[in-house]
Amino acid sequence: MVESPCVIGVDLGGTNVRLGLVHAGRIMARAEQAVRVERSPAAMVDFLARVITPWRSTTPAPQAIGIGAPGIVDPQRGVILKSPHYPEWVGFDMQAQLDAATGLPVILENDANAIALGEATDGAGQGFANFIMLTLGTGIGGGLILNRDLFRGDVGFAAEVGHMVLDYAGPACPCGGHGCWELYASASAFPQLIDQSDHPLRRQFLDHFHGESGRVTPADVYRLATDGDLFANALWKTFGRFLGTGIASLTNVFGVDHFVIGGGMATAWDFFVPEAHRALARHTYPETAARIQLHRARLGDDAGILGAAALVARRLQ
Amino acid sequence: MVESPCVIGVDLGGTNVRLGLVHAGRIMARAEQAVRVERSPAAMVDFLARVITPWRSTTPAPQAIGIGAPGIVDPQRGVILKSPHYPEWVGFDMQAQLDAATGLPVILENDANAIALGEATDGAGQGFANFIMLTLGTGIGGGLILNRDLFRGDVGFAAEVGHMVLDYAGPACPCGGHGCWELYASASAFPQLIDQSDHPLRRQFLDHFHGESGRVTPADVYRLATDGDLFANALWKTFGRFLGTGIASLTNVFGVDHFVIGGGMATAWDFFVPEAHRALARHTYPETAARIQLHRARLGDDAGILGAAALVARRLQ
Repeated sequence: MVESPCVIGVDLGGTNVRLGLVHAGRIMARAEQAVRVERSPAAMVDFLARVITPWRSTTPAPQAIGIGAPGIVDPQRGVILKSPHYPEWVGFDMQAQLDAATGLPVILENDANAIALGEATDGAGQGFANFIMLTLGTGIGGGLILNRDLFRGDVGFAAEVGHMVLDYAGPACPCGGHGCWELYASASAFPQLIDQSDHPLRRQFLDHFHGESGRVTPADVYRLATDGDLFANALWKTFGRFLGTGIASLTNVFGVDHFVIGGGMATAWDFFVPEAHRALARHTYPETAARIQLHRARLGDDAGILGAAALVARRLQ
Repeated sequence: MVESPCVIGVDLGGTNVRLGLVHAGRIMARAEQAVRVERSPAAMVDFLARVITPWRSTTPAPQAIGIGAPGIVDPQRGVILKSPHYPEWVGFDMQAQLDAATGLPVILENDANAIALGEATDGAGQGFANFIMLTLGTGIGGGLILNRDLFRGDVGFAAEVGHMVLDYAGPACPCGGHGCWELYASASAFPQLIDQSDHPLRRQFLDHFHGESGRVTPADVYRLATDGDLFANALWKTFGRFLGTGIASLTNVFGVDHFVIGGGMATAWDFFVPEAHRALARHTYPETAARIQLHRARLGDDAGILGAAALVARRLQ
């Protein structure tokens, strides 16, 4: 076992840019900035370089920079092709620019893939040859760790597991498809889960939100469920059922037993996981259902930084 | 490039046992026997050894035996755990027994996996780092070639892609699940596709079969479609739509562009493939749909023999 190198991990999130100096899976120093003021590629490179330059004189000194970026990333060329949070970033050659600004080698990867690698290296995926990382956010982000490494397919991008079909005749998805998994088991699913429910307490629940399901956030549903609201509890069960159905599908396709589940909605773990297991049992052979293990992601809010760090540390070892 | 060794490939099919002496992707000699008389493990080993022994004096001489077996196979221990066609075969240590009877090393694999390797080595999958093999038979058999090698997941068995969920609220499947893909796009799907159609010519079509959809085979539907029957044609289109929907799902999950499609139903290729492409477009990003290529399997009836041979030849090289 080679000792893990000291590296820098950068998490280009939708709200904040966060970066950390990482050694042996621990964050030794960190910095954060709201993204609003850092829209242009030049301003972002400048911000990162200003934080990173003083870190270069620490002991041990960082040897490289890993970046997890949302959107469509070309990891081979180190270019952000398109990013949902930064409309200006089209064909942004971040790798070359940050390398020039800091003198450190830079590796760029899709953020969901970086998080999967982070959980593989320092989190809930440690020791598993194969696992599927699911990040439950606005959609369902995915990362495939197969044979102990990231599998990117032919496109080189992240797995679009959120767009697996769960109902061929289902509603239209913004991706252009129909009945995609993330329409049923992500943050954006709640308004529809509420509207389609025939639960007797639905109307009473909606009174908290002026009768508008579109105002309900997963955080609201979690808070109400912990307060004992029965409809909120039923919503998490429905969410869990759809989550488990999709996991059953993935299990049948991959023959992979381990799933690591993170993202904002993992907070409600105890409310949805039992129902997810019931759905797994409903959609797989009994032997298969007995093998499946759902693991809660362990890197939490630091997953982006640690994932980006794990990404680059692997290349150095 | 190492020259490919001479090997023996064995295809333990549901109707016949077929084996061939294979060199450089070509079958130099072959033998076949109906399975009915060869039910016991001992009788099967005896039959294979009687064919193989004289082949050992050919030039070049075979160096090893590869076997593709239906059912649940443990490739590491060389044991057939359970087989649908041979109820007596429970925990049959075929690898050890055939090795002892012939003096040649034996490798055992699930038949769908062997066929995927065969197409990778000598068929339609040549040159692709990643592809998904789909065998359209009674169900949908699957084999995953990822990074130029078979991916078996944690279980070590074949991919159960036929049990990917296409409709979470769909009908029950013999696997215990609901709405599995193979209920919509395999030989066993036709009675249901017929029963659920509201096509005006449905009744007229069923007159050929005494009004019973359960009597209709894919071969019948193919024959009638080639004869210009409009309802038979519409059935293949529906079949293609469900096939393409499942392929869209797999594409979103794996990011893999190439699919090799074989099995009995591939005969009707021209009747279902255009509709499969339309379904792909309906369920994926336009950029993704444009990348997907559906390739017709090339090894045909010899896929089982050539796949088993490819399996063992790979190990020798």
